[in-house]
Amino acid sequence: MVFGRACPHAATGTPGTMGEGAMTPVDELDLVLQLPLFDGLEPESGRRLLGPSLHCEAQAGVNLFQQGERPEYLHVLIEGAVELRCVDPTGHEVVVEVVRPVDCFILAAVVTDAPYLMTARTLEHSRLLLIPAGHLREELYRQPALSLVLLGSLARHYRALVRQIKDLKLRTSAERVGAFLLCLALDQGGATTVELPYRKRVLADRMGMTPENLSRAFARLRECGVQNQGSHVVIEDLERLAEYCRMDTAIDRVEAALRVPAQQVLPDSSESVPPSRAQGTTDT
Amino acid sequence: MVFGRACPHAATGTPGTMGEGAMTPVDELDLVLQLPLFDGLEPESGRRLLGPSLHCEAQAGVNLFQQGERPEYLHVLIEGAVELRCVDPTGHEVVVEVVRPVDCFILAAVVTDAPYLMTARTLEHSRLLLIPAGHLREELYRQPALSLVLLGSLARHYRALVRQIKDLKLRTSAERVGAFLLCLALDQGGATTVELPYRKRVLADRMGMTPENLSRAFARLRECGVQNQGSHVVIEDLERLAEYCRMDTAIDRVEAALRVPAQQVLPDSSESVPPSRAQGTTDT
Repeated sequence: MVFGRACPHAATGTPGTMGEGAMTPVDELDLVLQLPLFDGLEPESGRRLLGPSLHCEAQAGVNLFQQGERPEYLHVLIEGAVELRCVDPTGHEVVVEVVRPVDCFILAAVVTDAPYLMTARTLEHSRLLLIPAGHLREELYRQPALSLVLLGSLARHYRALVRQIKDLKLRTSAERVGAFLLCLALDQGGATTVELPYRKRVLADRMGMTPENLSRAFARLRECGVQNQGSHVVIEDLERLAEYCRMDTAIDRVEAALRVPAQQVLPDSSESVPPSRAQGTTDT
Repeated sequence: MVFGRACPHAATGTPGTMGEGAMTPVDELDLVLQLPLFDGLEPESGRRLLGPSLHCEAQAGVNLFQQGERPEYLHVLIEGAVELRCVDPTGHEVVVEVVRPVDCFILAAVVTDAPYLMTARTLEHSRLLLIPAGHLREELYRQPALSLVLLGSLARHYRALVRQIKDLKLRTSAERVGAFLLCLALDQGGATTVELPYRKRVLADRMGMTPENLSRAFARLRECGVQNQGSHVVIEDLERLAEYCRMDTAIDRVEAALRVPAQQVLPDSSESVPPSRAQGTTDT
């Protein structure tokens, strides 16, 4: 068991790293395996997957990997926050995603051994598990259940990007911020007071706007009852905001978890589509 | 073998459908299985997967499914073109992806049985295979190799969306069109004359711009040696265009295929990361 091995980011001398990662008790490993991310894995399979993981801590502002590198690890964020940025050859940067615990990044590159398309940087002090990429791919061949877990995770990430593209192409800046706030509120069971999960610079970056544009967006949102003071936002009327943002709450919300449904018990026949289902469907 | 069953889109009476799908010879099924999409599947496994598929033909302008519906089939496009659109509650629409043969859509919804986030519409007369979603998920449990094939396919789609978000957030309209043309040229081995793969209305939609903006973008591209007449584009100097678009050709190009690499022969040990690899990597 090498869980708790030193963080490779310490070894590279990246500025701002915290040095050796602390040993992680086996209890914590069990805790990690109970997370939605690994739901569907037998405990024994999970321990086998995480066995050679490294435990890593990093301060804010540390690059965990660079766009263009080949993936060495699947990064699992346990605590903290990480931003995934695209950089162009002239040095312009843009945030594509902000990862919050507990989630993994970037699965698509790791499973296919393709170069990272994004650079990962910690936004705050973070704790991570690093699953060696080669080990993960080996386990994919050994454990069919694992590939189903990862298919679900990758599907969720894919769908989050579809929503972001919809946001970028269909909504104004103010509508985009409004939709983001509404998702936060709905995730908290319909709360009318929400805390912004990260600083406004990061929020602006994530929304693809300048800090000035973000301020203008908040100013516009005041007209439909959204009050903002610092990191604190009060939404007077969720429905009014949803209408303003042209939200379809049934499909605009990012899923907390997605998985391949458990195997259905079906007759072993090639006639697996009852005629009634071959008529197309409108059930939503 | 019900391959060649009638197209469900005919049964629903969707305007513009072509009625019954033609029977597909078994030869063609074997041909389909040789496609990169199914690479990695044993012929027997592939035939088992495609066995209950429906063969479907549709004219241009047919909705194959609607955003919000639960997926009944994995659609595999054999011939033609299909656009995937997001629609907001007020009826505004935007193209997220244009699918070209041979590719499948939308895997993320089908494997997780989550509602479609996009509406699929044929752009031209198209031929499709429809793999029943329930059957596909059953086969995922029966055939571990299939989930690896689908992980590769989903990873490729995920990465295409990352590139699109980068495009939308980092590039101007003209740079976006330039990058698109450059990818076309590179896909043809560095050709300096390319044909636009779809009409300009669709291209504008796909780029997230109006037809007028697209014309202005082409006008701007003339300054760096891009001549456009109808569907025909001549690029004088690929490098000059790449510089103008701030392309990083190593990572900006959409991969034609991505797969989970074949299992490596590694010593069966939890020490699967040699110390030299735990130092981080800079090899690109």
